[in-house]
Amino acid sequence: MKLALYNYWRSSASYRVRIALALKQLPYEYVAVNLLTRDQQRDGYVAKNPFGQVPMLEVTDDSGTVRMLTQSLAILEFLEEVHPNPPLLPSDPYQRATARALAETINAGIQPLYNLSTTDEVKAIGGDDVAWVRRFITRGLAALERAVAGSAGTFCVGDAPSFADCCLIPQLASSRRFGVDLTPYRGLLEVETRCLALPAFAAAAPERQPDAVAS
Amino acid sequence: MKLALYNYWRSSASYRVRIALALKQLPYEYVAVNLLTRDQQRDGYVAKNPFGQVPMLEVTDDSGTVRMLTQSLAILEFLEEVHPNPPLLPSDPYQRATARALAETINAGIQPLYNLSTTDEVKAIGGDDVAWVRRFITRGLAALERAVAGSAGTFCVGDAPSFADCCLIPQLASSRRFGVDLTPYRGLLEVETRCLALPAFAAAAPERQPDAVAS
Repeated sequence: MKLALYNYWRSSASYRVRIALALKQLPYEYVAVNLLTRDQQRDGYVAKNPFGQVPMLEVTDDSGTVRMLTQSLAILEFLEEVHPNPPLLPSDPYQRATARALAETINAGIQPLYNLSTTDEVKAIGGDDVAWVRRFITRGLAALERAVAGSAGTFCVGDAPSFADCCLIPQLASSRRFGVDLTPYRGLLEVETRCLALPAFAAAAPERQPDAVAS
Repeated sequence: MKLALYNYWRSSASYRVRIALALKQLPYEYVAVNLLTRDQQRDGYVAKNPFGQVPMLEVTDDSGTVRMLTQSLAILEFLEEVHPNPPLLPSDPYQRATARALAETINAGIQPLYNLSTTDEVKAIGGDDVAWVRRFITRGLAALERAVAGSAGTFCVGDAPSFADCCLIPQLASSRRFGVDLTPYRGLLEVETRCLALPAFAAAAPERQPDAVAS
């Protein structure tokens, strides 16, 4: 099985998949898709991915058949099924549900409210996009802090990194980029420190990617 | 195992879980949470669910231990793991990824942009919330129509109902409620017709729930 990840250094959904690939020690080709120049909306890309988004995982199986997988959590579930070790979900079904719920909270409850296509619309209707982003991130992180207080050990759920950590670390990075004060979220910051001490999380960081641009 | 579903008749995320429970023929207690009177934000509820949202699945296992599961797709994954028959994901890992990606597109790419907490903010910044909702739904359904054209058989992915159908049917119902013209989405409407012919989908419909109010 050969993997290529179509992604963008600063996309938090891309970052989640890079973390999972690194934790599972799966090598992959890095295909940069520049969101600033809207490369993801070009015909060639949309023909492969009808949603016109990153990340997209191109999987070439051993028979040479090529398939395109989309949506970050669906990609994480696929990787977990075909490369189960190390696991990125706990073995207990209730803990698995918790890890998935935390990941989903970020993926569906926070990130969509501040991605570029949303903030473009906020600006189009005359809104203050920065205030909008901060409001939704702050609200989401507060709920996440309460939830993680009940589930965390060393990581978001228990003592091994899971889908939840793959989503939390990119969420915290982009929260900082939008100037959100993270000091109220002590539990989340403690988990972050432990994650970033792992080489896999460090290797997946935006500024370490080939298409990163100094800001 | 005893199940209670905290939910609201018109919530599309609640509706997804009701469909899955019905397809798997799992009996459950129906606990109505009125979103219009903000019951989901009351202290008693938030103590159980830090996210203050529906649906929430209360699971009492055979030893009497009670656990609260949150987030609709995480709940679907849990049900699939503990009650695998009938399956709501295909057996092929690539097809599973497709079903999950379609579900995630609705869950993370469309629904969060028009739920009540988002449209409240749109109104607060002086925007036209109805135009906002229609714009995001229309954009999302167009991408979904293209994607389903490549994956559908009788249902969204192949010939058995999956997570994707559990999400699509509620999405189409709420799209109508917001006055979106669905005629361009012929492929989605054909899948809907076949889903609604199944008793499980019909039983899960909003207007069939005990807390439904005639509009």
